[in-house]
This record gives sequence, structure tokens and C-alpha cells, in this order.
Amino acid sequence: MPIHDPLHPLPRITLILGGARSGKSRHAEQLVQTSGLEPYYIATAQALDKEMSDRIDEHRTRRGDRWRTIEEPLALTRTLHSVTAEGRALLIDCLTLWLTNLMVHDRPIEAEIDSFVESLEALSGAAVFVSNEVGQGVMPTNAMARAFIDHAGRLHQRLAEKADQVLLMTAGLAQQLKP
Amino acid sequence: MPIHDPLHPLPRITLILGGARSGKSRHAEQLVQTSGLEPYYIATAQALDKEMSDRIDEHRTRRGDRWRTIEEPLALTRTLHSVTAEGRALLIDCLTLWLTNLMVHDRPIEAEIDSFVESLEALSGAAVFVSNEVGQGVMPTNAMARAFIDHAGRLHQRLAEKADQVLLMTAGLAQQLKP
Amino acid sequence: MPIHDPLHPLPRITLILGGARSGKSRHAEQLVQTSGLEPYYIATAQALDKEMSDRIDEHRTRRGDRWRTIEEPLALTRTLHSVTAEGRALLIDCLTLWLTNLMVHDRPIEAEIDSFVESLEALSGAAVFVSNEVGQGVMPTNAMARAFIDHAGRLHQRLAEKADQVLLMTAGLAQQLKP
Repeated sequence: MPIHDPLHPLPRITLILGGARSGKSRHAEQLVQTSGLEPYYIATAQALDKEMSDRIDEHRTRRGDRWRTIEEPLALTRTLHSVTAEGRALLIDCLTLWLTNLMVHDRPIEAEIDSFVESLEALSGAAVFVSNEVGQGVMPTNAMARAFIDHAGRLHQRLAEKADQVLLMTAGLAQQLKP
Repeated sequence: MPIHDPLHPLPRITLILGGARSGKSRHAEQLVQTSGLEPYYIATAQALDKEMSDRIDEHRTRRGDRWRTIEEPLALTRTLHSVTAEGRALLIDCLTLWLTNLMVHDRPIEAEIDSFVESLEALSGAAVFVSNEVGQGVMPTNAMARAFIDHAGRLHQRLAEKADQVLLMTAGLAQQLKP
Repeated sequence: MPIHDPLHPLPRITLILGGARSGKSRHAEQLVQTSGLEPYYIATAQALDKEMSDRIDEHRTRRGDRWRTIEEPLALTRTLHSVTAEGRALLIDCLTLWLTNLMVHDRPIEAEIDSFVESLEALSGAAVFVSNEVGQGVMPTNAMARAFIDHAGRLHQRLAEKADQVLLMTAGLAQQLKP
């Protein structure tokens, strides 16, 4: 379901998957910037250490001044719905960090994923979700890491089913998985 | 080499690869169910703990009553050949667990893989093999995990060479790697 | 930009990515061998233990006598430029090991990657670079492993941008990511 303005070719829901440092964020930014829609960046990252804080700064510098930035580590579903509007494109970066934050704060992950997925229907503008592919290494022995992989995989499957387009990034190059 | 009945479009040997929670089993079940062939589920999993036992129950509930289920953690090659028959589709879920079981029981992995691959020619019905892509994370420091990745990668290459079709699942979406 | 001789279909720069044991080296060897160009193998591996030494021997045996082999764990950029020549195809196996060697020897990785990428323009023959996809597992807790994933991802993106073709191997099967 493309959004209404024929000049904006960004479909309503895009999912961009890829491994670490595969060019997901950059590709998502380009999709949003070339859409002509008003760009909103919804960051799920929290600058808890220097490594993360450097990465946040690097992304912010790259995006430049046109973007509005909202930081929301936990209440993602609510934030999406307070920001979405026709004519806007939301870039959500990234879902795997959101899941990590939910786990760290001991929130009910499955219920959170359910509300997130159900509420996608109500998005009135475009949204580009970035998320890390995490399940293609050897299964970790750590139970929390295995639970994380399970949650991420289930979330990706459910979001991909609702999404209008799904892209998989490798070395900065996109493969179109859907449509 | 497709099986003989023109109403059944499932080729003789299918390999479905994908990361953890990528939708491999579900896709394999759909391929088998829509083939019209008599469905057999060959499970290599053993319910050694609650996590695994829950997962087995979840898969069993999803498949429903039409399926015959055979649990075989080790003697996979022999089981395949006692069950295969024209008009039947075998779903083998999954090969990486079979490899794990062989390693845990200290079996000669390379010899087991050799017999498995050589015996594929003799399958008289269709077979859909599910296996986990495990080699795209950072190489683990643990020697047993590295050996596991090696065995899995070699098995996948050899099976993919024999297979009529190979699919790679990501977020529930299939990419056709072969043909 | 294909190399000049129309009989040799190998483009100037090829990047072959894939997980561990995905058939990258074998595919790279076939590309070089069928190109008709004079084959050079530039190995970044060092036989520091038996596992690695066995793997090096296995690759060497498979390639056979026509190949010239050069072992260079660190000074890859300089080696490329002393060996490249019209009519030659260089197989570099692999970049992730080169990065590992640079990290182990505490070299300035970003500067090394910069010189490497900048110097690609000057290659006068064909080159096929093999590298491991390492970022699709769960993010390791070990800071050095995370840094390694970052370096590898950045290198792959930059090389993919310069490359004439990029292939992704899974179970011995190639997906063409570029062009």
C-alpha cells in the first residue's frame, strides 16, 4: 500500500535487515531522503557507553539538519503513533536495540511485540524499520542470547509479513526479499 | 528430478537453509502440505530440556494430525531409507541438530556425512531437508563450535550440489538459490 | 571495467563474500582458472597451528601446480601492487584473516584499510578478493570481536563499492549482489 502522494515512491512499511555494519542505516536514510517526505529519526539507542555514544554521533552527523530526532529506547509503539502523519517518513533505528532494551528492563517482550505488530495498520505515513540479522551464527550457549535471537526472529517474520517491502543488506548492497 | 506424479510439484530433494527463527520449518511444512504427498516428519530433536521440549510441542501442534512423526536423533540415513516411498514427502528437521547429536555421541562425522550424501540417490519419494545457516557470525573461539561450523558447511555444500532446489529463508521470506 | 583482453571475462575487481565453509575459495579458484589469466594466489593465512596448517595444505592441493603462491599476512597492499600485471589474476584469500593479522600485530587498521581501498584503482590486472561474512550472528560481548566485525563490515562496504562484481556464497551457491 503506497502512501498517497504519487511523487513519493516510498511504500508505507519498509523493513531493512542486515548484519552488523552492512550499510542498513545509510540505505534507510537514503530511502527516506529521496522520498521527499518530512524525515523523522526515531532512535532506540541509549548512549550508555562511549562506543554507543560515538556511533550515535556519527549517525547524527551523517543525517544533517533536516531531520527531527526522537530518542525512545522503550515506548516505541506509542512514539510511532504520536509521530506518524501523512507526508512524514519515520526511520526507526533499530528494532534489535529496542528488543535489547525491553529485555534489559524486564518488560513482557511477547506482549510488546504483539502491540507493535498490531498497531502497524494504523500508521498514516511511511515508516522504514532497521533491524539486525542476528540468527546466522552458531547458536550461543548463553540462554539470554538465545532468547534474544528467538524474539528478533519472530519479530522479523511478523513485521516482514506486514511490510510492503523487505530489503536485506550485505556490504552496502541491497537484495529485495519482498515484494 | 521431479517425482513422477505430475500433480505433485515438489522436486525430489529440497534443502531449506536459514538462520535461527527464520521460518524454515514453517516453509518446509507448507511445501510438503501443498504437494499432496503423504507427509512424514522426521525429527532429529531430542527433548533434553524444557526449551527444546516446548519447541517440539509447538511444531507438532502446528503440523496437526495428518502427519506421521518419527523421532531419530542419530540413525538418520537408515531412517530415511526405511521411510521413503513414492507418494510420500519426508520433512527432515533439522540437519544441524543431527550433526550436534553425532558430535555429542562422538560418532565419526565425516563417515556419517559420506553415507548420508551417497544414499540420497536411492530416495524413491520426495524429501525436504531443513538446516540452520550457522557460519555467518564471528568465528567462535571454542574448538568444538568451529568444528561444528565446518561440518555443517561441508554438509550443506554437498547436499546443495545434489538438491533439485535450495531455498534460503530470511524473516519468513524465501530466496531461491537453486535452480 | 573489464580487463582488456576480450577472451578473459573476469572483471577487474571481484569480491566474494560468504560465511565459513560456504565455498568461497573454491568458487574464487574456478573464476580465476576459467579466466585463462595467469593465476596468483595471495594467502594472508599463517600456519600458526595445525588446524590452520591443514587448511592451507588442503587449499594448496586443490589448486594444483599452475598457481604461484605468495604468503603475506600483513603487507597486502604492497604485495598486490608488486604482483599485479595485465594478463594476471590475483586471488586474495582472505581479507578477514588479513584484518585479524593487523589487529593481532596492533597495526592502525583504519589507515591500512584506507591505503588498501585507495590503491585498488592502480591494479593493472584482475583481482578476486575472498572475505568472510561475520556480522550476522548475535553481537559478541568481547570488545575485540565487536571491533573486528566493525572493521570487516566497513572494509566490505568500501570494497563492494569499488568492485565490478560482488558475489555472496551460501552452501556453495553464488548469489550475484552486484552488478
